[in-house]
Amino acid sequence: MASWESYLEEKEKDHLEELLELLRIPSISALPEHEKDVRKAARWTKERLEKAGLEKVAILETGGHPVVYGEWLHQEGKPTVLIYGHFDVQPVDPLHLWTHPPFDPKVEDGRIYARGASDNKGNFVLAIMAVEALLKSEGSLPVNVKFLIEGQEEIGSPELPSFLQKHKDLFKADLGLSTDGSNLGEDTPSLVVGARGLCALQVDVLGAKSDLHSGLYGGTIRNPLQALVEILAALSRDGKIQVEGFFDKVRMPSDEERALYRKVPHDDDAYARELGVPEVAGEPGFTTLERAWIRPTLELNGIWGGFHGEGIKTVLPESAHAKISCRLVPDQDPDEILQLLKKAILEKAPSGVRVEVTEFPGRARPYLISLDHPALKAARRVLEEVYGQPAYITRTGGTVPVLELFREVLGIDTVTVAFGTDDERFHAPDEFFRVKNFKRGRIGYGRFLQEMGKA
Amino acid sequence: MASWESYLEEKEKDHLEELLELLRIPSISALPEHEKDVRKAARWTKERLEKAGLEKVAILETGGHPVVYGEWLHQEGKPTVLIYGHFDVQPVDPLHLWTHPPFDPKVEDGRIYARGASDNKGNFVLAIMAVEALLKSEGSLPVNVKFLIEGQEEIGSPELPSFLQKHKDLFKADLGLSTDGSNLGEDTPSLVVGARGLCALQVDVLGAKSDLHSGLYGGTIRNPLQALVEILAALSRDGKIQVEGFFDKVRMPSDEERALYRKVPHDDDAYARELGVPEVAGEPGFTTLERAWIRPTLELNGIWGGFHGEGIKTVLPESAHAKISCRLVPDQDPDEILQLLKKAILEKAPSGVRVEVTEFPGRARPYLISLDHPALKAARRVLEEVYGQPAYITRTGGTVPVLELFREVLGIDTVTVAFGTDDERFHAPDEFFRVKNFKRGRIGYGRFLQEMGKA
Repeated sequence: MASWESYLEEKEKDHLEELLELLRIPSISALPEHEKDVRKAARWTKERLEKAGLEKVAILETGGHPVVYGEWLHQEGKPTVLIYGHFDVQPVDPLHLWTHPPFDPKVEDGRIYARGASDNKGNFVLAIMAVEALLKSEGSLPVNVKFLIEGQEEIGSPELPSFLQKHKDLFKADLGLSTDGSNLGEDTPSLVVGARGLCALQVDVLGAKSDLHSGLYGGTIRNPLQALVEILAALSRDGKIQVEGFFDKVRMPSDEERALYRKVPHDDDAYARELGVPEVAGEPGFTTLERAWIRPTLELNGIWGGFHGEGIKTVLPESAHAKISCRLVPDQDPDEILQLLKKAILEKAPSGVRVEVTEFPGRARPYLISLDHPALKAARRVLEEVYGQPAYITRTGGTVPVLELFREVLGIDTVTVAFGTDDERFHAPDEFFRVKNFKRGRIGYGRFLQEMGKA
Repeated sequence: MASWESYLEEKEKDHLEELLELLRIPSISALPEHEKDVRKAARWTKERLEKAGLEKVAILETGGHPVVYGEWLHQEGKPTVLIYGHFDVQPVDPLHLWTHPPFDPKVEDGRIYARGASDNKGNFVLAIMAVEALLKSEGSLPVNVKFLIEGQEEIGSPELPSFLQKHKDLFKADLGLSTDGSNLGEDTPSLVVGARGLCALQVDVLGAKSDLHSGLYGGTIRNPLQALVEILAALSRDGKIQVEGFFDKVRMPSDEERALYRKVPHDDDAYARELGVPEVAGEPGFTTLERAWIRPTLELNGIWGGFHGEGIKTVLPESAHAKISCRLVPDQDPDEILQLLKKAILEKAPSGVRVEVTEFPGRARPYLISLDHPALKAARRVLEEVYGQPAYITRTGGTVPVLELFREVLGIDTVTVAFGTDDERFHAPDEFFRVKNFKRGRIGYGRFLQEMGKA
């Protein structure tokens, strides 16, 4: 029987074609009009797991976008690894900034361009392919595996907590393996030990019952846009969040941990240049990576109200709106932060307008895994092997709600091993994934399962 | 020969039909795609002036939207009145708030619903009809008249100043009569002696070269939306404009004048209720009408940036934008105010973003006519006659750029006599004009010309 590595080599072209097929499905979980596409991606995933040789493969209902399950549990005495990923993707606007249509994937200069290419379709399918290679070549796996591939990660996985609680026994495992992450560079592996939490809300400031003439009415009533900017400006000043109690539960990392993070190469000027900003900016007293990893944020994701067409419209608008999200660090609690924010917003609201605050579902707690965890050590060995250099220890400023959820509901730690790269434009126009790491990843996931089988 | 009043009575139905015809033309001057419609409205106006018996009627080019001219100059020794109006209208968004399609006029419960019904199509055509009635019934007019009906008032008449300068001799007159105004109530006439000036600009805050993931990048660079709200919040606080030098040239009205304004009936609670706001608000130390008439404003007309769809998109947006306009009072200068504003905006701009300020053309100086002006006195007599009660003396918070322009270029004062009502939703959804005042207006303009002929 051929080795699992040569199986993967042989199937390389087919596997890439399969990924492109999945990338053609516009499974945007945030937009109701794409609900069927999310389900289509679930069916694709189900069929792919079946084809790989997984058992009891099923699409499970959550009340919202579904979860796809599959298992292989014939390695008694060995640990069970729960492999996590998501087949839903972010919205694509502003569409005009894409140079490739987001759901018509193109492979060009070693890059696969499409929404979801790196976050997370391109990563989770690699784990399925690795499992397939091991099963087809060796007839068994080095450990037991379960798959939980979900369809609502990009909206904060609102139904996942109750779903997981309900199916606690089905998903029982010894370790989580999340494929939802990325590495420092194309050839520079890194291991993420922490992720920020998330909570989000919308502020609606309501003024007159219709838009008014800014000349006849201007100066006589509160302009909702003016009220909104005054509220928002009061929440953060000079990069420092001003919400009372916001920092109370923020835990600073140990000096040792902070020193590890400081090893991670970073050049503020190059970073600013690459993003196209004049300079980095943010909370005083922290490095740029620290601001992204160990400090919380209050971010305005969108503001709208009044006229935004060409030219002037001298209107006093009826309403003004903002979407705000916060990234949280240990030990901040998303529900508590939402309450503090809501209180601050309502307290800052000026007279003459009505202010409404709507909390979005899909909040996530921040996550941190110990540097001494055996799975983390195994992951370090594997990454060094496939990349040819040791992995940096990092955190991500992003949110992987499932990490804290697995800990809370299943009582397990989760290690994140992924083969995307930080610069691959997740959530933004022209997202891509590197073909080179598509190849590395299939080997990497197989080797990780082998390492876990040695324990 | 029948009297001019009975001529008007006889033609009532036809004249109303004619207005509806004009209201069907979507002559939105702010939107490039409606340029042809503005020109169509110009042709309609030209034909209507010809039909009324005016001479040398012509569409004159301005470089932008055109002006329609017409004259009748056979009353030697009598003054020449230059009658002003505009056939362009405001945009109609938000379209979903209209209960009648804006360019499919409906007459319902004594109201003509359509964009432009009251501002200003419904007003200026009345003056043409009055002139027609006098000419057809009496063979002559009590004074000489010239018409200047323009097509760019709603974008601030950017080309009118140079146009008027160029055609200074053609438009030579002794008095301006503007039809672009309104009255306090359906049956409560008022005379506007002042109008606020206008200037406007756009602020663009530019961050990264594309939208970014708010988790991975949040906290490391300045969020353009955050920068924008901090800039805007610094320009005005608690209803008081904070721009340095902004109030330096504001002239307070005399005690006598202020006392006249204070006679004008106004109920803050009823006003707030009607607009649908919890209470009135604005600069401390002034009544609501004073804030609208004798005090300048800094109004946010629109803000946009980032995600505004349904749900959450955890994005750190690439840019943020705002449109700001100021209403000015004597003796503020729009160019000077724009410079002060621009300076303040750039000074408040935080690091890490680029801030651009674009001044819009179409600025207007504030206007004021003396209470002792003979034309103002004539207008008071006429309004008392057709409404059956004396006119209140008011100002408008709105802007009629042409008033100051006529003063500057032609050296004449302008009296504003109009038959719309303040509550007729100019610039807003469901704009309307009252049929009752459509009738009053045709008589009113005729009587005013007669009064001016007695001088």
